[in-house]
Amino acid sequence: MYDRLKGFRDFYPREMTARRQVIDTLEATAARYGFREVGTPTLEQTQMYIDKSGEDIEEELYAFRDDGGRDVTLIPELTPTVARMVVDQQQALSKPIKWVSTRPFWRYEQVQQGRFREFYQTNVDIFGTADPIADAEILAFAADALTELGLTASDFEFRVSHRDILTGLLESLTGDDANVHTRAAIRAVDKRAKIEQAEYHGLLTDAGLSYDQAQSFDGLLRRADLDEIAAVGNDTVTSAIQNLQSVLAAVDDLGVREFCDISLTTARGLDYYTGVVFECFDATGEVSRSVFGGGRYDDLIENFGGQPTPAVGVAPGLAPLSLLCQRAGVWPAEELMTDYYILTVGETRSVATRIARELRASENTVEIDIADRSFGAQMSYADSINAETVVIVGERDLENDEVTIKDMNSGDQTTVPVDAFPGDLDAPTYEDVA
Amino acid sequence: MYDRLKGFRDFYPREMTARRQVIDTLEATAARYGFREVGTPTLEQTQMYIDKSGEDIEEELYAFRDDGGRDVTLIPELTPTVARMVVDQQQALSKPIKWVSTRPFWRYEQVQQGRFREFYQTNVDIFGTADPIADAEILAFAADALTELGLTASDFEFRVSHRDILTGLLESLTGDDANVHTRAAIRAVDKRAKIEQAEYHGLLTDAGLSYDQAQSFDGLLRRADLDEIAAVGNDTVTSAIQNLQSVLAAVDDLGVREFCDISLTTARGLDYYTGVVFECFDATGEVSRSVFGGGRYDDLIENFGGQPTPAVGVAPGLAPLSLLCQRAGVWPAEELMTDYYILTVGETRSVATRIARELRASENTVEIDIADRSFGAQMSYADSINAETVVIVGERDLENDEVTIKDMNSGDQTTVPVDAFPGDLDAPTYEDVA
Repeated sequence: MYDRLKGFRDFYPREMTARRQVIDTLEATAARYGFREVGTPTLEQTQMYIDKSGEDIEEELYAFRDDGGRDVTLIPELTPTVARMVVDQQQALSKPIKWVSTRPFWRYEQVQQGRFREFYQTNVDIFGTADPIADAEILAFAADALTELGLTASDFEFRVSHRDILTGLLESLTGDDANVHTRAAIRAVDKRAKIEQAEYHGLLTDAGLSYDQAQSFDGLLRRADLDEIAAVGNDTVTSAIQNLQSVLAAVDDLGVREFCDISLTTARGLDYYTGVVFECFDATGEVSRSVFGGGRYDDLIENFGGQPTPAVGVAPGLAPLSLLCQRAGVWPAEELMTDYYILTVGETRSVATRIARELRASENTVEIDIADRSFGAQMSYADSINAETVVIVGERDLENDEVTIKDMNSGDQTTVPVDAFPGDLDAPTYEDVA
Repeated sequence: MYDRLKGFRDFYPREMTARRQVIDTLEATAARYGFREVGTPTLEQTQMYIDKSGEDIEEELYAFRDDGGRDVTLIPELTPTVARMVVDQQQALSKPIKWVSTRPFWRYEQVQQGRFREFYQTNVDIFGTADPIADAEILAFAADALTELGLTASDFEFRVSHRDILTGLLESLTGDDANVHTRAAIRAVDKRAKIEQAEYHGLLTDAGLSYDQAQSFDGLLRRADLDEIAAVGNDTVTSAIQNLQSVLAAVDDLGVREFCDISLTTARGLDYYTGVVFECFDATGEVSRSVFGGGRYDDLIENFGGQPTPAVGVAPGLAPLSLLCQRAGVWPAEELMTDYYILTVGETRSVATRIARELRASENTVEIDIADRSFGAQMSYADSINAETVVIVGERDLENDEVTIKDMNSGDQTTVPVDAFPGDLDAPTYEDVA
């Protein structure tokens, strides 16, 4: 007997039914917005991730040398891959480019609740436009997907900010001080909710801010009063606020403004974000971590050797999403769905198989006895697969050219002529006509 | 700029649209037969593949040691994983177990037409029953999936055989000769069509057959006359023929007998098959290799440490299937599908966005201008995404409270009141009622 690897999961059919429904909902929502599916490789050159995120990333990569001597990695995220694909075909692709892809990713890290070494995300990105409506479509896709899953405004909130408000505010507060490390300060803001106040202030002063600067910076972020911030901020801040307001106006046009709050302490940890950023949180706080996040990253394509190409995206992960949906009681039922089970008694298989074939041709999910079991064993199997209807094809009924149809919800049984079943299931019945 | 790895593929949206249709067809067909989706890890312990296939397999594996010192492999096939999953939950799972899974696999081998280092297969398996109807359902699933894709009996054929006919025939012809290596002889039969006649005979004599034995063995296989073979064969042969005939009778009940030919030179190379085996071929011979194959493997679960559990399965691969579909002219169109493009002229975005939102709520695929483009640029973009209808929301039309609807197939344009569009798209129109 072999063991599954730690941090990896097997999904048996009941659990998979629920996961598939959630993935289908995410993808169907993306499709309605005109996002197109792309298929991407599982392995890429390790160098791509080191260039994007620094040498330290290697520790958490499933990286190895292949038999051809290439340093390769099981991809830990999709963004570098889609950036590579955009650069590779940038002349051929008509812009804007709107892509969606659901697939697994891998990180070698500590396994904990809702975090695995193999995990699934649906990545949704727009390339080739800096228009605020693009940011708004990303937010609207995410909000629509969650409401399609059954979540409401009392279940989740998007905390929205803009990177340049932080950047510009730091410039305004600290002047041209070359000792201030903007990215480090932004990473400190990103960690703010997860660490003690003292540690947070320590990180800000480590980033070069004085004690007073750190105090007033944090005070401004907490109050999140855009007028107050515009008053003390430089041009970078002013135009960032304008951009954020334009995005929120478009979000309003798209009908999802109610899910969005301005939250300037939302920063997103990754250095590559350049504009609007946001994170989705459980509105009840029960799921304490960010469920997922996204934002604008206008420089990445150029850094990957392409033409300057603005970009914005979001990547809901299935594991944190399942925590939120379970908390809210909207995670899909983990049960099988079956339209018909064809139960055979005696030597009736030819007739039973004909019935199964015709029901399948009308796109029903149909199982038939394939293990020569007793009546009782077949009935409990039909129960276990949650069959809506059991068609009993018995030798004795067949002598009268009949089969028995059992509705498994009501328990009602009726006998129908075998030649008339299933017949034309789509034909109008008396009830439809009446 | 970064390069994609050799043998790996990027699928851009047009190609992916076609691939997704084919995968959806395979999965929908499997669902109708009651196969349930499972989700499986990408990495497994390397030892599992060595135990199943021998040390030589390592050469073609993407195997490496992870940071925790485990020897792991990107899975080259699904069977060991699903066998492990069956063993792991064998008490809890109600039998028969019918599973389906579409996912990528990896083999480090030479890249050639229709063969890549990362490749996709849809695995369909039944565990827990040796009943011939189980084998028949696997064949019927495969045949139905291909006809659903638009292929006909003049496009493909299933060459069906039974491992024990070969095994029993070798026993009958060679007696108890301990020098005869049955598995090697069967592997020789599997290679028969791909190598020269002399080389084939050489492999048979290497396997311990005399020249005369090899001649009569091959003659019997070629003629495939089951009566003749039963006459010279032992009990193993007789019961294998009976089993094969029962499977074909059930295949007939399931309506797919016309796609199946008995072909005793079809052997399947892998040692682990134990009963009925089959391969799908292009009926025109233009695609020269086997498109996919499957069969019964009753010993594997027990070899993996489980209770004795018979099993049968098939695994169509997307790459060879695409060769067959393209040859037959039924590969889906590689083009995008879009219901509506909302074209904006001037400051009309609020209205345009409201229309987009309502159309999306009725599950249409809708794109709207998100890059502030000219009329002409938007029209050619609408063309590039194959929009069926363009809704032109122009400043001048809006002054009259109207929008223009353009049918992109006919070129017809009509003007409708903006408040009435889209309205209730599902409401009966005059034509429906008349």
